[in-house]
Amino acid sequence: MSYLGVGVSPGNVPVYHGSYLKVVDRRVRIAELVLRCVIVGLAVLAAVLIGTDTQVKEIFTIKKEAKFTEMKALLFLVVANGITAAYSLAQVLRCIASMIRGSILFNKSLAWAIFSGDQLMAYLSMGAVAAAAQSAVFAKFGQTEMQWMKICTMYGKFCNQVGEGIASALIVSLSLCVLSGISAFSLFRLYNGNNHNKAKANPPRW
Amino acid sequence: MSYLGVGVSPGNVPVYHGSYLKVVDRRVRIAELVLRCVIVGLAVLAAVLIGTDTQVKEIFTIKKEAKFTEMKALLFLVVANGITAAYSLAQVLRCIASMIRGSILFNKSLAWAIFSGDQLMAYLSMGAVAAAAQSAVFAKFGQTEMQWMKICTMYGKFCNQVGEGIASALIVSLSLCVLSGISAFSLFRLYNGNNHNKAKANPPRW
Repeated sequence: MSYLGVGVSPGNVPVYHGSYLKVVDRRVRIAELVLRCVIVGLAVLAAVLIGTDTQVKEIFTIKKEAKFTEMKALLFLVVANGITAAYSLAQVLRCIASMIRGSILFNKSLAWAIFSGDQLMAYLSMGAVAAAAQSAVFAKFGQTEMQWMKICTMYGKFCNQVGEGIASALIVSLSLCVLSGISAFSLFRLYNGNNHNKAKANPPRW
Repeated sequence: MSYLGVGVSPGNVPVYHGSYLKVVDRRVRIAELVLRCVIVGLAVLAAVLIGTDTQVKEIFTIKKEAKFTEMKALLFLVVANGITAAYSLAQVLRCIASMIRGSILFNKSLAWAIFSGDQLMAYLSMGAVAAAAQSAVFAKFGQTEMQWMKICTMYGKFCNQVGEGIASALIVSLSLCVLSGISAFSLFRLYNGNNHNKAKANPPRW
């Protein structure tokens, strides 16, 4: 018997043998769905927090406005979170459709696509968070050796909101790391002899 | 038959059935070994390039020295590459030992440890590279909106060497991404019914 304990009925409907494996598989799928929903929510939150963040300071008669577009790392973080949210929303819909139909991922090409997408998003998100966090550190503490002065003393409200956005993006990033583990599991567990196509051609005798 | 087509002889020596699968497995193991060796070499190179990078400038009578320790992101990159090199060296030795003994990874705990370690290293490395790259961008181009001036016009040689170190660390990072895919494959392919322990207890009849 394979790990999944999955056979295919003549009507091509996956049939489970073993309630334990059924429970494990259901938990993995629920965890995946919950994580993807969390990611959509927090990625949108991060993008909105940073994207809408502005603060105007008047120094004598000169008005100066702090905006996220002035720092490329923040712009990159907003774009990366936008892409992540859109991608994750599409994945949420796929998860729901697959749960409603009760089907299990047997298609290796699709599993490879999901695995690659999740990996790409995880690294993109991690890179964007690290770059933005580094910029935030410079803005908060300055870099005296290079005579880069801290700007958060002037734009406190702006910096706080950016900090909240980065924290939200960090949770997105960590969730994506866990998710890429789940999609790796979903892909590579297909690599045993009892795969779907074989099972279709030769229904197993378990 | 399992994906690997591996049985265990009464003498507990893995026996292959199917030369194609043997070739695939050998290629994966060779790719893993080569990648780990590349990572050791390039991580050491990155750490040395950045760690030994200094440049002294004399402005009137004041001597100013640029060092990697002045920028936390570069210090983090050196430390991260040192950890990556040490970890990868240990993994290279494990790979060689496993190739000499001709054994195949069947131990789920070890596979989980390797998978977790590789994932951690990949994200650590990606984060360190992104943060260092962001600092390098500020140093190279400055950030006029915040009155952070570019410093690479003064410390050209220092900046070039840092750039080479970051490029080397980026290749390390990308190699670690591929490696974490390989270790995910090595772990999750174990999740089928014909695992080692079962095979030991009940030698398959393929």
